Amino acid sequence: MTAKSEPVQEELVLALPKGRILDELRPLLDRVGIIPEPEFDNDNSRHLKFKTNLPHLSLIRVRSFDVATFVAFGAAHLGVAGNDVIMEFDYSELYAPLDLGIGRCRLSVAEPVALSQTDDPQRWSHVRVATKYPEITRRHFAARGVQAECVKLNGAMELAPALGLCHRIVDLVSSGATLRANGLKEVEEITAVTSRLIVNRAAFKTRPEELHRWIETFREATHAP
Amino acid sequence: MTAKSEPVQEELVLALPKGRILDELRPLLDRVGIIPEPEFDNDNSRHLKFKTNLPHLSLIRVRSFDVATFVAFGAAHLGVAGNDVIMEFDYSELYAPLDLGIGRCRLSVAEPVALSQTDDPQRWSHVRVATKYPEITRRHFAARGVQAECVKLNGAMELAPALGLCHRIVDLVSSGATLRANGLKEVEEITAVTSRLIVNRAAFKTRPEELHRWIETFREATHAP
Repeated sequence: MTAKSEPVQEELVLALPKGRILDELRPLLDRVGIIPEPEFDNDNSRHLKFKTNLPHLSLIRVRSFDVATFVAFGAAHLGVAGNDVIMEFDYSELYAPLDLGIGRCRLSVAEPVALSQTDDPQRWSHVRVATKYPEITRRHFAARGVQAECVKLNGAMELAPALGLCHRIVDLVSSGATLRANGLKEVEEITAVTSRLIVNRAAFKTRPEELHRWIETFREATHAP
Repeated sequence: MTAKSEPVQEELVLALPKGRILDELRPLLDRVGIIPEPEFDNDNSRHLKFKTNLPHLSLIRVRSFDVATFVAFGAAHLGVAGNDVIMEFDYSELYAPLDLGIGRCRLSVAEPVALSQTDDPQRWSHVRVATKYPEITRRHFAARGVQAECVKLNGAMELAPALGLCHRIVDLVSSGATLRANGLKEVEEITAVTSRLIVNRAAFKTRPEELHRWIETFREATHAP
């Protein structure tokens, strides 16, 4: 067999989220057989794109919200994103075939403890909410006839009620320690959150075998004991 | 004089941006006479709000985009934000009376070096742009009749052209090293950027003396040799 008979394989790009989720992802990458170049573990690296042990697979490391955008626009073929991010964007170009079972938390409504003692969520008619998730928040409240005025914040939502910006926030909750530290109480869960493997739909049509293989490889590694 | 004759002074909240700008701000805070509690210098602190040596002044440390939102909604009375952030939101509730002369950089259009050799910005009719600043970008291009389709990214804009997401990006440029490292070239400056002292307009009406005094104090410290 000559080199000529090998099809030229186009690069495949896998987008991974920075931060906490990446730590949980590493054992899964190991099981899948993806070994990033050493620079990937340098948190201060200026690099954004990394080679792996697999000649046709590159990684990009971006913010969790940007993973969904890079994959939806076909700039990455595969990615790992929480269903919070997937729901917020609601991109038609994203396909999320596999729950990776990591990054477990929940997206919830919280409010000051004092307020929660007399407040009945069933009686809300209009709420102002500070959140990183204005779309999910609007849809959640609209579904039961409540109009939510959302103030988009990128972080520090927990500060907003004490400073009088709003009474309620919608935020990711894991242990609840951050809420408690800020005098807040979870009053409603909007959705449970885990990280999913996401695929660009157009790439899935043009490179079905390769992408199917990756989904199956991740599926096996996810269910491995 | 008894305690009774002292007016009860309401807390004043100053919102500061996390990260690089904060390092440049510290000498200015020193000259203004604001000494944050020690916890403020703990980068891993879960705290979001901090006391200072001044009994009526608290600090919050939030993302640069959120500084503008906290001040616009009156959750903070004063803040420090770049004019990039101020322009992007265009909040009517913000007043930006003082250029602090720190955080100098520029907001620019960049594109791949190879493209820039034949590209003429005067001939663009439609562009797709990856940026953290969709509003500024749309306004900038619309002003000369070019329709900009903006893809909002929160970071890693420099990756987008090489991955085929778009040809152009609009991003903050300081030394230009990040652009060069990604094979990109600055082709147009949209605006010079520096950090400004911002004030909530409603607070400025209800507490004019206090806020005037702070603006003057910052003005003197900014112009100090």
